[in-house]
Amino acid sequence: MEKISQSKNHHGTQFVYRHDADTLRCSMNFGIYLPDNISAPAPALFWLSGLTCTENNFITKAGAQRVASELGMILVAPDTSPRGEGVPDDPDGAYDFGLGAGFYVNAIQPLWQQHYQMRDYVEQELHQLVLESFPVDQKRLGIFGHSMGGHGALTMALRSPDKFRSVSAFSPICSPINSQWGEKALKGYLGEDPSIWREYDACSLINDGAHVSSILVDQGTDDSFLNEQLKPDLLDLACSTAGIDLTLRMQPGFDHSYYFIASFMEDHLRWHSDRLR
Amino acid sequence: MEKISQSKNHHGTQFVYRHDADTLRCSMNFGIYLPDNISAPAPALFWLSGLTCTENNFITKAGAQRVASELGMILVAPDTSPRGEGVPDDPDGAYDFGLGAGFYVNAIQPLWQQHYQMRDYVEQELHQLVLESFPVDQKRLGIFGHSMGGHGALTMALRSPDKFRSVSAFSPICSPINSQWGEKALKGYLGEDPSIWREYDACSLINDGAHVSSILVDQGTDDSFLNEQLKPDLLDLACSTAGIDLTLRMQPGFDHSYYFIASFMEDHLRWHSDRLR
Repeated sequence: MEKISQSKNHHGTQFVYRHDADTLRCSMNFGIYLPDNISAPAPALFWLSGLTCTENNFITKAGAQRVASELGMILVAPDTSPRGEGVPDDPDGAYDFGLGAGFYVNAIQPLWQQHYQMRDYVEQELHQLVLESFPVDQKRLGIFGHSMGGHGALTMALRSPDKFRSVSAFSPICSPINSQWGEKALKGYLGEDPSIWREYDACSLINDGAHVSSILVDQGTDDSFLNEQLKPDLLDLACSTAGIDLTLRMQPGFDHSYYFIASFMEDHLRWHSDRLR
Repeated sequence: MEKISQSKNHHGTQFVYRHDADTLRCSMNFGIYLPDNISAPAPALFWLSGLTCTENNFITKAGAQRVASELGMILVAPDTSPRGEGVPDDPDGAYDFGLGAGFYVNAIQPLWQQHYQMRDYVEQELHQLVLESFPVDQKRLGIFGHSMGGHGALTMALRSPDKFRSVSAFSPICSPINSQWGEKALKGYLGEDPSIWREYDACSLINDGAHVSSILVDQGTDDSFLNEQLKPDLLDLACSTAGIDLTLRMQPGFDHSYYFIASFMEDHLRWHSDRLR
C-alpha cells in the first residue's frame, strides 16, 4: 500500500491509498477516513459509488466525515472499476459500461473477465486489506452506496449478511435486470443467460430467499433516472413479500446528485451506527 | 440571467446561473444557495474562491449549505476570473495567473484590462445583480473566501465596510505584495508601480487606515503555502497595530484543501450570522 494523500478533516484524517489489486490485475486507489478518537476496533462503513465516479467523489462531496468522526466510524471508499493501461473500456466510451462502471460484478465474458472482478475486489480483497491494515472491527461492518453503488451495496449485503451487518442506499438501481443500465452491464459482463444475472439483482436475490433484517433507502422524487433505471417500487414489493423491514423514503424535490446524498448522509450514518452497536 | 442548474440541498436549493457580465465582457457563472424558509430580505454571504477554482468548488465541497439553511443565510459564489473565447490566459498556462486567477483586481495593463476586472465584477455588477434578483438584505451582506479568495474578501471588506458588514477567511493571502503569487499577479495585472498595489493588499490597506471591527481567520499549520505565500503573522501585526479585533486560529495539522475549509465552515457561518443580526 502506498499513501497517495492525507488531509485532516473534522476530527479525523482522510487518506487515499493505492495498492496492487490481485483480483483486478491493476493498481487501485481507495479512500479511508479515520476518526481521531476511535475505540479500536471500530465500526466501519464501505461506500460504493455510482457511474463515472472514482474514490474521490464521495470523500470530497458527501460531507460524511463530520458525523463519522462524531460517531467514531471508519469510512472506506473504493473506486468503481479497474483502471489503467491494459484495462479495456467500452468501445464507444459509454459512461455506463467499462471504466467507471464495473457494476460490482465478477465478469465472465472473455473481454472483461481478466480485470472486471469488482465483486471479489470489494467483498474479498479490499475487505481483507482493510481488516489487516486498519483498526476495523470485522463484526461491525456496514455497506452503503449510491445508484450503481446502491445496487452494489444491496446485493453484497444480501449475499453476505454476516460480512456486512447493515445496509442502506441512496437512489439505488433496485433491479438491474429491469433497468437499461443494468441490462446492458449484466449482458456485457456476464453474457446472455439471465439466470446468471440474478445474484446481481437485489430484488431477485430477495425473491430467491436472501435476507437482511432491515434496509434504509432514500430516493429523490425529482431524480430523472427514477422510473427508467432505479425502480424502488420493485424493491418495496420484494421486501414486503419477504418480510424485510425496508424504510423507503421518497424525498420530495431531490435529484440524483451529491447534493441529495449530502442532505441525508447524517441520517444514514446514524442509522448504521445504531445497527452496528 | 439563465438558469444552468438547480438541485435541492438540505433545506434549500443550490442554483447555478449564467449571465453576461458587462464589467468582464464575457459570460459568467455563479452559484447561489437559497434556503427554503428565509425571512426576506435575508442576510447573504459572498464566497470568493482560490486559485484554479470555478463557481463549482465551494458549492460542491465546502458543505456550507447545511448550516446556511439552518441560519437562513443566502450564499453567493462567483467564478475566479473571466472565461471564454477571447479572454487571454497566462502565456505559459500557469495556474497562478490568468484564467482561474483573477486575484479580484481591476487590471490596468493593456493585455488584461479589457476582461480582468474582477474587483468591479464582484463589488459592483454581481452585487447589484444579486440585490435586484434575489431576496437579499443589502444591509446584511458579509464576505469570506479561501486563499486568493481570502485576499479578495479581506480587501473588499476593508475598502467597503458599509457594503460588506462582516468578513472572514480561510488561509488567506494576507499580504500579496509579500507573496510570490501576489507579486506576480499584481505586477502582471497592474504594472511595476507598487504604490498601485496597496489597495489590493489587506495589510497595506490596514496600515493606510482602512478599518473593519473584526475579522475571523482560520489557518492550517500544515498548509504548504503558509510561510511563503500566506503570512498571517503580517495580518496579525497590522490588525493589532490598528486595533482591529482579529481572531486568528492556527488549526493544528490542517492543510490548504477543502477538507480544511469544510471542517471549520460551520464556525464561519455562525460567526457571520451573529454579526449580521
